[in-house]
Amino acid sequence: MTNTKWTLYPDRFFDPVPAQRQIAQELYSTVADLPLVCPHGHVDPRMFADPNYTFGSPTELLIIPDHYVFRMLYSQGVALEDLGVPRSDGGPVEQDHRQIWQRFAEHFHLFRGTPSGIWLMQELIEVFGVDEKLNGDTAQAIYDAIAAKLATPAFKPRALFERFNIEVLCTTDAASDDLKLHQAIRDSGWQGRVLPTFRPDAVVNLDAPGWRAAVDKLSAAVGYEVDDYPRLIQALEERRAYFKRMGARAADHAALTAYTGELSPQEADDIFWRAMGGEATAEDAQRFTGHMLMEMARMSIEDGLVMQIHVGSFRNHNAAVFDKFGLDKGCDIPTASEFTRDFRPLLAKYGNDPRLNLILFTLDEDTYSRELATLAGHYPAIKIGPPWWFHDSLNGMRRYFDRIMETAGIYNTAGFNDDTRAFPSIPARHDVWRRASANWVAGLRVRGIVDDEDAAEMVRELAYGLAKQAYRL
Amino acid sequence: MTNTKWTLYPDRFFDPVPAQRQIAQELYSTVADLPLVCPHGHVDPRMFADPNYTFGSPTELLIIPDHYVFRMLYSQGVALEDLGVPRSDGGPVEQDHRQIWQRFAEHFHLFRGTPSGIWLMQELIEVFGVDEKLNGDTAQAIYDAIAAKLATPAFKPRALFERFNIEVLCTTDAASDDLKLHQAIRDSGWQGRVLPTFRPDAVVNLDAPGWRAAVDKLSAAVGYEVDDYPRLIQALEERRAYFKRMGARAADHAALTAYTGELSPQEADDIFWRAMGGEATAEDAQRFTGHMLMEMARMSIEDGLVMQIHVGSFRNHNAAVFDKFGLDKGCDIPTASEFTRDFRPLLAKYGNDPRLNLILFTLDEDTYSRELATLAGHYPAIKIGPPWWFHDSLNGMRRYFDRIMETAGIYNTAGFNDDTRAFPSIPARHDVWRRASANWVAGLRVRGIVDDEDAAEMVRELAYGLAKQAYRL
Amino acid sequence: MTNTKWTLYPDRFFDPVPAQRQIAQELYSTVADLPLVCPHGHVDPRMFADPNYTFGSPTELLIIPDHYVFRMLYSQGVALEDLGVPRSDGGPVEQDHRQIWQRFAEHFHLFRGTPSGIWLMQELIEVFGVDEKLNGDTAQAIYDAIAAKLATPAFKPRALFERFNIEVLCTTDAASDDLKLHQAIRDSGWQGRVLPTFRPDAVVNLDAPGWRAAVDKLSAAVGYEVDDYPRLIQALEERRAYFKRMGARAADHAALTAYTGELSPQEADDIFWRAMGGEATAEDAQRFTGHMLMEMARMSIEDGLVMQIHVGSFRNHNAAVFDKFGLDKGCDIPTASEFTRDFRPLLAKYGNDPRLNLILFTLDEDTYSRELATLAGHYPAIKIGPPWWFHDSLNGMRRYFDRIMETAGIYNTAGFNDDTRAFPSIPARHDVWRRASANWVAGLRVRGIVDDEDAAEMVRELAYGLAKQAYRL
Repeated sequence: MTNTKWTLYPDRFFDPVPAQRQIAQELYSTVADLPLVCPHGHVDPRMFADPNYTFGSPTELLIIPDHYVFRMLYSQGVALEDLGVPRSDGGPVEQDHRQIWQRFAEHFHLFRGTPSGIWLMQELIEVFGVDEKLNGDTAQAIYDAIAAKLATPAFKPRALFERFNIEVLCTTDAASDDLKLHQAIRDSGWQGRVLPTFRPDAVVNLDAPGWRAAVDKLSAAVGYEVDDYPRLIQALEERRAYFKRMGARAADHAALTAYTGELSPQEADDIFWRAMGGEATAEDAQRFTGHMLMEMARMSIEDGLVMQIHVGSFRNHNAAVFDKFGLDKGCDIPTASEFTRDFRPLLAKYGNDPRLNLILFTLDEDTYSRELATLAGHYPAIKIGPPWWFHDSLNGMRRYFDRIMETAGIYNTAGFNDDTRAFPSIPARHDVWRRASANWVAGLRVRGIVDDEDAAEMVRELAYGLAKQAYRL
Repeated sequence: MTNTKWTLYPDRFFDPVPAQRQIAQELYSTVADLPLVCPHGHVDPRMFADPNYTFGSPTELLIIPDHYVFRMLYSQGVALEDLGVPRSDGGPVEQDHRQIWQRFAEHFHLFRGTPSGIWLMQELIEVFGVDEKLNGDTAQAIYDAIAAKLATPAFKPRALFERFNIEVLCTTDAASDDLKLHQAIRDSGWQGRVLPTFRPDAVVNLDAPGWRAAVDKLSAAVGYEVDDYPRLIQALEERRAYFKRMGARAADHAALTAYTGELSPQEADDIFWRAMGGEATAEDAQRFTGHMLMEMARMSIEDGLVMQIHVGSFRNHNAAVFDKFGLDKGCDIPTASEFTRDFRPLLAKYGNDPRLNLILFTLDEDTYSRELATLAGHYPAIKIGPPWWFHDSLNGMRRYFDRIMETAGIYNTAGFNDDTRAFPSIPARHDVWRRASANWVAGLRVRGIVDDEDAAEMVRELAYGLAKQAYRL
Repeated sequence: MTNTKWTLYPDRFFDPVPAQRQIAQELYSTVADLPLVCPHGHVDPRMFADPNYTFGSPTELLIIPDHYVFRMLYSQGVALEDLGVPRSDGGPVEQDHRQIWQRFAEHFHLFRGTPSGIWLMQELIEVFGVDEKLNGDTAQAIYDAIAAKLATPAFKPRALFERFNIEVLCTTDAASDDLKLHQAIRDSGWQGRVLPTFRPDAVVNLDAPGWRAAVDKLSAAVGYEVDDYPRLIQALEERRAYFKRMGARAADHAALTAYTGELSPQEADDIFWRAMGGEATAEDAQRFTGHMLMEMARMSIEDGLVMQIHVGSFRNHNAAVFDKFGLDKGCDIPTASEFTRDFRPLLAKYGNDPRLNLILFTLDEDTYSRELATLAGHYPAIKIGPPWWFHDSLNGMRRYFDRIMETAGIYNTAGFNDDTRAFPSIPARHDVWRRASANWVAGLRVRGIVDDEDAAEMVRELAYGLAKQAYRL
């Protein structure tokens, strides 16, 4: 290998047909510098609460916490221990961050043609000023360059937040979270807008690892024992109110399936009690989640928090990896989803209520044209979230535009969100979306499907307006 | 908003690569003016039976009856009452057609990039001579322009039928229909070819709303009490014979799933009796439909009516809308379908019979390459219908060509049908198909997959020949 | 029809955008002449064992054995008897090969735009020197031309093997096969590398036609009675060892679903006994296959044979055709597959073991982005096989690249295999893949997603390296 220069082409990701590329470039240029609206993601609020927060080494910033990255190396036989991923039992893992970085660099070819490769390259070039291609030969020099940047004040999170031109960034926070970090951000006088999001999965999904402990935390947060179903509802309503006072605009819910269905209060209480006794079945868990989604829709109508539902991730699919390393280690695998039947009970009760802003995310692209677009193209409550996780990619976006927009129209979609914990990758992720959406609209324009006026407005909505509107920001 | 002119580009919808666009344009020009063959749709025969029929106001023509249109506005919070959609109970709805038109125009941006937007624009320009873009500012002037046209003899249905160069148009008619309107068309001396299609769903699908009333109508039509299963079969065979005498070329069947399976006459009779007593279960209904599809295949072999099956629409998904407004109000939602196992019993009995012309339609694009193309590429009886409903769109057509043709070949498909009740949109719909298919074939030509001779023949077959052949027209 | 010349364009199959086409052409030129690696297919080893083997008539070579070809004619009403397909009962079928060829030629338009059409055309031009388009008028002259070639020494299989520049070709052989043909190839001194592959389906899938007879053959092969489950395991292990000594690099397994799950030895033995007594149920068969797949994974880890699994073909869907003509008559139809849950037991036990090379094939493209790419992008054991069967086509490859590569990366895929019994079509099939993959990479290059270095390496890996690596060749 030799040292190759990296190039970010100004017209990257656009269709190579000159007529379309030129329109895409023009449309993109009108939104490229708009502020970033980040209504859903997993950035740690600590970064902004502590003005002296530092990201640590390049490896701590870019590899160890990023399951998008290390799962690819793991798939090719690199042990997670050798990448410094911490073990749940505190057992030994690689501590030499330079060595981990070297391993990563030597495997960087694995990311050819992948969104992670695109984000990492753009991030290294634009955020860190690296212009040499990352590989085994250049690894250490690039490590040095990044480390040097990270040591400067310009690379503190707040400074990057401002440099990235982030208008608002929403974190994701457990129902029991005291939001002290968010309070600290407010108290600091710093002007960056960082808002919490209410995520009660840990106490709603009875079969999630650590459910009982999460209920105890919730009890501590509300100051009374959450020991039956009515108390759970009361506690959740109180916490939502608290989150709302602290600026939250939305709640977020993950579910393995889109199943919804109402339980009687007695049934719900019985299941809750079985769960407290460690005796809930898988069916109990599904029915309870299905019921709680309906309760959450009710609460959203009452308190105005936008309701997000992320459907279809089989969490911790690889038990061996989960047992050794814990949650979020790149072994969550999608499953097929069904909305037409499963989601009907919730829609029957709340789907016609225009006060509800219900944003649906799926990992099952097969539901795009068949179910999500047709549901969102009819029910007032539904909007479709952007392509999620594995589908947050150039092809994923193209398929999303292709299969959803003809039936739902863009106004039944929710713009973009980066959904990331990798803070420095945020500009690259939004840039990919803005380019992909400009290119899609350019394709409509060059085929005579929309005119200049439509195209300009659509690109702006996709880049900026729809997300603000869907999340009431 | 300003008044923008609308433009229909001569090369619209074609690929922007000049080499492909030019071939597409040339191929399209050879079929653009061929007569329209309309073998399946929902146009009301009354239009042609009554020489003095008028379409009413622009709102009555283009909005109130078109669930493709009002469902999109409903999804964005516009009440159906405010669009003049009649309530089942006759309760009050907006009566001011200008006001409804204004609302529609102000929301016209919702249709950006959608097939409804494409059809409406082309229809307004080509049929009604409108050249200003529809929006809130231009709404009333455009209303006036359309209303003025509709008041002229050139905008009577028969005149438009001739202007549209329709070679044949098939309606869809209940099994109990007396076809008096069709008789009136024949008796009138008008030369337009309008044929009925036999659609017995209302008496076959036991769980359809109004099944019992439909059976009573069937009894009235045949002149004896359809009070057991043998009488049902007899009645259906008699009605098919009558439809055939009246010019019908095809029957049409809708089913939630592709399930087929033969019942014994006793089982069928037992289920029929339970249904007459209001005691049929959902499973009864599915088994009965699955059995009747096989009976219908048998009858098609015997009487030569082409058999269409439309699979996968969950009708009246939104109970609140159905209760208030009735059938066909934009709340039918697709479900996943399965053909390989579900349809096997029918194929085992009739699939090898070349006398059967069985045209399959799906709302589940996932079955295109996996099931429909492979079944049609083997069984002599099967042809694949064109992309249906939500998939009757530029992207839907591209996916259809992409995922079906390599395995099935074009000769196992059934050309195009517009499947619409919106009569003035028919030319636009066929034009989209002709452009999309010319563009697809041009893509094969420019990649060296077919030669000029193949390309020319394929485009003609897709635009005209396959539909005539599949429907024996 | 007139006699039209056929043309193979040098830039066929590439995107028509000049910028991409030029890059594709350049990339393709670097791999066009690389040796062919054929790690999975169904070529008869007899061709190479017998130096005097001849292919027979053009009809015997190109039509009678090729279910890709005759199923298309059958779908359009041509009886299999009229195409010379032999009946299981030895009953009369068309014997006039010229007449069969004529029928085929008159229906050749059915293959427009299909991969079979592409392969046949390229094969006729490049292998047999035919330059007139095949149709009813040219049929007999082309028959004569092919027949004349086939009579020459240059058209013996070994000569074609060398002309085709095949580096290695793996056959597929029953577990009980004595591999005498492979031994004969080795003994002959001919240098062509032809290797067996271990395919035990006939004794593993209890519900396969002829299972009991296959077990008897296995008993004969190992020299003892395979009359219980431990003996079955022992026999399979011995046969694998024999295949390995004979050069096998891989085993291959077909299963209707991806279901895996371990049985206790007692359960396995009970099911085996029920099967021996003709009393195994469909559930027994599925559970047994699911268990045996896990056993096969264990054996693969132990003996190092690569493990291929082909999931989702509903064999012999058309009972009438199967009863009359037997296996592999173009009536195998795909079904939907599920991997996330079904395949988890095997992955839980063996998926983290880097000694396992598990290559998954699917007929359900819906699993590409949702399940296969995400599983292969995490589990070290999994690689994804190339687009299979109906999806071994230009569009099938495009969808494969589109939906798999962003998540899995190319290094978790297994390159190409032709999977064919039609030996003379092998160069055309590899050429389609090499062109399609060069074009895909050119699309990444022209959009600035990869650079020249990446592009060159990716194209070479896709054309040559990945297959060798995945199959340990």
